[in-house]
Parts: sequence; structure tokens; C-alpha cells
Amino acid sequence: MSQTQKHPPEHVAAVDLGSNSFHMVVAKLRAGELIIVDRLREMVRLGAGLDAQRYLTEEAQQRALACLDRFGQRLRDLPPGSVRAVGTNTLRAARNAGQFLIRAEKALGHPIDIISGIEEARLIYAGVAQSLATDGRRRLVVDIGGGSTEYVIGVDKVPLRKESVRMGCVSMSLAYFPEGKVTGKRFKNAVIAAQYELEPFQYAFRSDHWDEAVGASGTARAIRKLVIGRGWSKDRITLEGLNRLTETLLSLGRVDKTGFPDLNPDRYPIFPGGLAILYATFKALGIREMQVSDGALREGLLYDLVGRIYHDDIRSRTVAALATRYHVDLQQVARIQATLKVFLDQIPSIGCIDRETAEQWLNWAASLHEIGFDIAHSQYHKHGAYIIENADLPGFSRQDQMLLATLVRLHRRKFQFKLFKELPRPWKEAARPMSVLLRLAIVLNRSRQGNLPVDIKIELSESRVVLRFPSQWLENHPLTAADLEQEARNLRPAGIELTYL
Amino acid sequence: MSQTQKHPPEHVAAVDLGSNSFHMVVAKLRAGELIIVDRLREMVRLGAGLDAQRYLTEEAQQRALACLDRFGQRLRDLPPGSVRAVGTNTLRAARNAGQFLIRAEKALGHPIDIISGIEEARLIYAGVAQSLATDGRRRLVVDIGGGSTEYVIGVDKVPLRKESVRMGCVSMSLAYFPEGKVTGKRFKNAVIAAQYELEPFQYAFRSDHWDEAVGASGTARAIRKLVIGRGWSKDRITLEGLNRLTETLLSLGRVDKTGFPDLNPDRYPIFPGGLAILYATFKALGIREMQVSDGALREGLLYDLVGRIYHDDIRSRTVAALATRYHVDLQQVARIQATLKVFLDQIPSIGCIDRETAEQWLNWAASLHEIGFDIAHSQYHKHGAYIIENADLPGFSRQDQMLLATLVRLHRRKFQFKLFKELPRPWKEAARPMSVLLRLAIVLNRSRQGNLPVDIKIELSESRVVLRFPSQWLENHPLTAADLEQEARNLRPAGIELTYL
Repeated sequence: MSQTQKHPPEHVAAVDLGSNSFHMVVAKLRAGELIIVDRLREMVRLGAGLDAQRYLTEEAQQRALACLDRFGQRLRDLPPGSVRAVGTNTLRAARNAGQFLIRAEKALGHPIDIISGIEEARLIYAGVAQSLATDGRRRLVVDIGGGSTEYVIGVDKVPLRKESVRMGCVSMSLAYFPEGKVTGKRFKNAVIAAQYELEPFQYAFRSDHWDEAVGASGTARAIRKLVIGRGWSKDRITLEGLNRLTETLLSLGRVDKTGFPDLNPDRYPIFPGGLAILYATFKALGIREMQVSDGALREGLLYDLVGRIYHDDIRSRTVAALATRYHVDLQQVARIQATLKVFLDQIPSIGCIDRETAEQWLNWAASLHEIGFDIAHSQYHKHGAYIIENADLPGFSRQDQMLLATLVRLHRRKFQFKLFKELPRPWKEAARPMSVLLRLAIVLNRSRQGNLPVDIKIELSESRVVLRFPSQWLENHPLTAADLEQEARNLRPAGIELTYL
Repeated sequence: MSQTQKHPPEHVAAVDLGSNSFHMVVAKLRAGELIIVDRLREMVRLGAGLDAQRYLTEEAQQRALACLDRFGQRLRDLPPGSVRAVGTNTLRAARNAGQFLIRAEKALGHPIDIISGIEEARLIYAGVAQSLATDGRRRLVVDIGGGSTEYVIGVDKVPLRKESVRMGCVSMSLAYFPEGKVTGKRFKNAVIAAQYELEPFQYAFRSDHWDEAVGASGTARAIRKLVIGRGWSKDRITLEGLNRLTETLLSLGRVDKTGFPDLNPDRYPIFPGGLAILYATFKALGIREMQVSDGALREGLLYDLVGRIYHDDIRSRTVAALATRYHVDLQQVARIQATLKVFLDQIPSIGCIDRETAEQWLNWAASLHEIGFDIAHSQYHKHGAYIIENADLPGFSRQDQMLLATLVRLHRRKFQFKLFKELPRPWKEAARPMSVLLRLAIVLNRSRQGNLPVDIKIELSESRVVLRFPSQWLENHPLTAADLEQEARNLRPAGIELTYL
């Protein structure tokens, strides 16, 4: 939802609303380079605030809002488009995430995206890759979060294979170690539960598929600290160190100050679950040692943001790749984009969306509006919307995908404008006029011949669109007139009067 | 739904429940060759029996059932699997098609498939191609049906590009020529309506994309007869003949015995719509002359049926192509199919489905169960089911696609057995135990390692499955035991008790 910037901002920031902690990182942007100037972390433990029906409790929301309020004070002066904030597993799962987000965005003062597990994996890998050498080695990156764990194999800056599973140190600890009690049986069950999640893809993530393993999370950092502190390893988590730490925990029966004086107390309740996940990961994937990186989701977000600011937006690459993969007719896309440009040149802004942002989204929608053809011609607009809504689209948040899917879904046939109401702000209002522009650009190019006049005039308001063609043009193109007549019929139930002359 | 035959039947038959006419053709099958021995046609005009809410009226249903009853008398002695009957546009559109089909299948004595417009186009092309030389020329085949019109470009036996549009001689005549009155304005509007439907793909079907045009339908045959009868052409429909016929009709103002003594009276009410579609087709695609073929959907059905009988089932090719296109892990498919074979070797039949048929469908479902991965890993069973339900799958009927989609949809996670209730007979009952077998074969291969013992014993009843492993095997494979424990939890709400020992 951020806009590309004509003048790059001085500061950029990333906020990660994780299931365990909320993180914020602020960086100076100097000639395209990032210099971190501030980091904040608060253990909000949002994941523990999901009730049995998957609603975020009011208490948990209050904890989260108080934290975002504090973050927001720091970010108050940063301009729109310079802050990227994302929610992960708990907000993916929470049924009342939408209502919470309205309050959360108000507290933070910036929009908050919900991202998929696979998108989270991509961003984590980007954050970790920045902290490591570019050496061509194949890396396994493991990030044990509060509510989900991500596994990525990649080389240098390129993630090759991504997985995200719904188990994290918070959820695992709640399920298998209630009241913090750790027994051999409990631990064994937790490990089997973690192995169960890993089983479908462990064959592809085992040690013969990578050269080095990297851990990236508070859990990994805490475990490294403990094994180094006990002298079991010099600088990383070894299999032996992990085994001995597990034995220690089992013999003590719980995590507390006596047994683990070097562990941050706010990690006590979530440590056994995190340890079980890492233990299962070592066993299932054949890991013998794992280094630990400080890079994480929030750094990945910052690098993505810099790309957007400097017009190297991964989303444009994603759209291009998708259009190619689904055999889109690129000439037709170009015709539609040219017509959109004719329209937008006459329209200064669409609601609170500036022209550049509107054009970016409309061009993406134009690129993808026919991908559903590849499933079937019949109802292809629905198939395209299905793909866009459900696919893993690097760089796009859930809300982004909903917007794109809705534009594609409504690009022809009945104008079911009620679907816009389900979009988050600001699209709830802006998507409707944008959709009208896209529909008209597509209708006018329905013959796929590129014989449109360049001087079509458009007037667009809430309830009225006027298209003016050069004199005699419509008379000489009765099929386009028929197309517009049909479109006028489609738009009328939405209270939009289309006039063409 | 037909079974492959161990001994090829002596006779085979095809029935086409079209929107205008119902057709039946019976052929002798001698050493793989077809010799047509009987043809029947009745003008049921089912398409005119759809009310405004898209329900088939009881009156129209009675007309159809009476016809199917007569056809059924002729087909009574043909064994299961030797008759292929299909419904097209009207049955695709009718909301009460399901209830009608139960009565229709009873009258005919054989199952009736509903096929998509694109599948109809494929079968029409197959029927037409059989009647023409194999000469490497690019052919445009146009079939104007009662409720839909199909356009196919192909070479020899291979259709290269298929389109199906929802306009036919019945629907067009009802909409634009009420009471049979034909005026210049009405005709012009009908032609524009037809061109509107053709517009999105006319650029790809114009005359520079093919060498010869072939018409295949009662409409084309009737028009050829009229233009030849008036001496405007020797053996085909020419542009000039079509123009002159149109002028004649416009000057007469209606189709009746006086003006068209050489036209079958039961074609009077649907002739103007058919002529308008052919006229628009000539104009839009730049056709100058069109020969007319006797081949049609029903012949295509017969050739398909022979393929199934002689184990050259196009559906197997479709499944293989889909698995390749969606990058399915074929090794994993082979593992699951091997486990299914172990199961089926111990189970003589599943309800009224013989072992061979059950294995065919389960193998297809196994081949396709992971195609949804290509959209996203999360919820991939739903994505796979979506693709199978909506894609154009050559050889598969709508009901076939529903069955396959349901097996894929339910191959993991919650066992939402209620979805089986929406399937047509006999799958309504048989799909449930088949689904259980597929789920178990997939669960047992969840590690993708192929380390299963070959001597797993299975007992399957309505409410109970028992799996027996070699002694100590489960103890040594605790993860498989965990997988089965989870599956037992999944099956329990469906009233199925899974025991493994």
C-alpha cells in the first residue's frame, strides 16, 4: 500500500508484529544504503492471546496496541511509504484480525500488512542473506517464530525453496508444556509433533541439499548462548550441545532462574517448545551444527522497502513472472495499459490514491487479468482471481493480493461492486473507480486489434462516466458501440451511468 | 463412468441430448472398426424449455423423457460401458439438471454425462475429422448448435484451438425473432449480438489461421441445401449464396412453407437465429466458402468410446499431461499407486464399482492430488480440486471432474465426507470408501521415502478400517504411527474407526 517516492525519505522503518515479540527497526537511508539507527523489541506474546475460537482477546489486543502506540511515537514523523509493518502467523489465524488492524494502524500511524508464511520465509531469507557472505554456498535457514517456523534453502541472495509450518515456540509450549513442566514423555511428544509437520518436505530439506545451516530467531540465539555458556561449543549450536542442553532441561524438569540463570526470564515459558522444534529439526534434517544470524524478517522488510523506493519493486518482477508462467498475451496487456494511460492522463488522482500508485496497481491488474485463461476460458476472470488470491506472490501482502484479485475478478461481466467493501482501507473506496477504469480499458480493446483512437476523452465521477470519441468513430465501429452498450448495462446496477458519444 | 471392457462389446452407441435435437447413433464394432447401423433424431427442443429462472419445465422434461424412453428401447440390450450419452448447453445451464438426469438415465437405461462447451468442441472436431481427408490442411470447424456454437481450428485429427460460445439457433431465434418475424433491424441486431460473442477470439480464428472452413450442424446442412436448391452454389455454402439467402429471408419477412418449401418445417422457428449466427461468423472470420460435413458430436463420442474400450483412453493422456504441466512429483505418485495396488489386491470391489474401474479413478486422483502445489503449498488440496473442477480436461465429463476434484479435495486434513453426497450415482456411495483408500495410501507415503513394507494387510468396511503391519514395523517407524494416529482422528467424525497394529 506504500507509494513509490519521488524524493527518497531520510529514514525508513520496519515493524514486525510477531506472535511472540513485536520488533521495530529504524534505519537511515543514505545513497541507497541502510544504516540502522534504532531497534526496539517488546515481548507482546500475541500468539498466546488467541482464544479457542481463534479470536484475539481484548487483553492481548490492548497489550499489542500499547506497544504499537510506543512504536508509533517513534515513527510519527516518517512520511507515508517509508514504514513497512507486517503481521504474521497470529494475525493470519485470528478471525478478528481485520477489526484489530484498524485500531493497530491508528496506533502505529502507518498501514499494516498481513503476509503469508511463504512471504515471511522469503523476507527472513532476505534479512539473513544480508548478514552473511555472498559465497555461492547453499544455505538452510531456519527461523523458529512464536506461531510459525520457516525453512528456506537458498544461495546468496536467492531463496530457492521455501516452507512455512504452523508451529512456533509459543504454540508448541502452550500445547505440550502447560505450566512449564517438562518431562521426557512431554518432550518426546512435542518432538514427534514437530517431526510430523516436517515430514512432508524433510526429504527435500535434508543435509544433502545444503552446505550450511543457519538459525535466525530469539530461540536460536538463546540456545546458542546457553550451549556456549556451558562450554559445549565455541560459537554455534552443535548437535552435541543441543543433546546435552535437552538432557539438562529434562533432568531439571522446568526452565527457571536456578537452572538457567543466563536465560532472559521472559523466555522461560516459551523455551521448551522452541527447544523441541529445534531438536526435531536437527534430527529430521540431519543437521550437525548451526550458526546463528542476527538477520531476520524486519531486515528483509527494510531491504524490500528500499527496492520499492528505488523502483526495483519485487512485486513488478512477480507480476511479470506470473504473466509469463500463465501465458498471458502481452500485446493485449500493452494495449490495455496504453488505454489506461490515456485515461489516467486526464484524472489527477483517485480518491486518496495518487496517480502513480493507481497506475501501478492498474497496470499489474491489466498484466494479470487473463491468467485464468490457462485454467479454462469459461469464467476465466474467476480463475484468475482464485490464483491471485491463493498463490504465493513474492512482495505482496494478503491485502495486496485481495485488491489485485478483486480487480481481476470484476474486470468483466456483472459489476459486483459489493466485493470492494471487503477490501481494507483505502481500497474500500478507491478500488471501485479504479475497477471502472480497468473495465473500460479492457472493453475498448475487446477486439484485440489496437485500432483505438488516441484522443478518447474521459470524465469520471462517483456515479457517472463519460467517454467522448472522435467524430464518427463510434458510427464506424458499431461493435465497440455494442461493447459499450453492454458495459453500460453492467455498470447501471452499481449506480454508474456510462455515456459514450 | 463407463468401465473398460475385457471383451469388447458387439455394438456401441452414442446419444447426444442437444438443446435442439436429441440424436442416437448405433454402430457395430468389428475388429476396432465402427460400422454405423442405426441413426435416430428427434427434435426435442430442450433449450426452449428453460424458464426465466433457468429451470427445465416439466413439459420439456416430459418431451425429453419420452424421446429417451424410445432411444432406451433400442439400447436396452447393450451392456454397461458400451453406450456414451451426453448433455450439452441446456443441461449445463439448467439449475435442475441433476434431478432431471436421474429420470433421464432411468429412461435411457445408461448413464448420461454433462460435458463442457470446450469438451463438446473437441468431440465435434473428432467427429468431423473422421469424415474428412487426412491432408495436413488447417481446418476451421463451426458447429451451430441449439444453445451453443463451437469453433475449432485443427489439422487432421488434432484440434489446436477450441472455443465454445453460449449462442445457438434456438436461443438466438427466441431472443431476436419472436413469433418468427424477421425484419432488417432484428436481423442486424442478431448479427451484432453474434459478433459481440465472437469478438474476443475472432483475431485468432480469422481466415489467415486456416485453409478451409467446414460447417457441421443441422443449420449448416439446411443452409447448404437452400443455396444449392436455388442454384447459387454447386456443393457448398458460399458468401454470395449466404448473402442472397439472407436478402430473400429479409424480403419475405418470415420462414414458412411458401418461401422455403425445401426446408423441413420443424426448422422454421429456429432458422433465422441459425442464419444470423452463420452470417456473423462469415463476416467476423472472413469466410468466403464453407463445405458441410455430416460428422458431429455423436460420431466424436463413438470414437472416444472405442478408445476407452481398447485402452487408449484420452482421459489417461489428459491426466498425464496435467500432472506434467503442474510439475507433479511422479515418484511420489508411483509410491502411492503401488500402495493403492496393495490395498486393492485385497478388496474385490467397492460397492457396485469393479476393481479395475476403482483403480483407474484412484490412480488418476493419485496422479493429480498434488497439482495444487503449483499455486501454493498452503491449502494445496483445495487448489488442486479447484483446477480439476474448472479446467478443460479432454475426455472428462462434468460429473467425472466433480468426482476427481472431490477425491483430491478430501485427500488430507478433515474428512468432509458430506461432499460425497453432492456426487452423482454411483459415486455418491462409492467415493467414500475410495477416498479412504486414497487417504491411507497418501498418509503411509507421507515421508516420500518408499520404505513401506509390501505386506500390509487391510480390511475395509463402512465403519471400520484395519491396517496390519509386519511385526515390530510400526514400533520402528513412530512417525508413521503418528501419521496414522492423526488420520484416525480425521476419520472418526465420519464414523470410521481406523485401527493399525
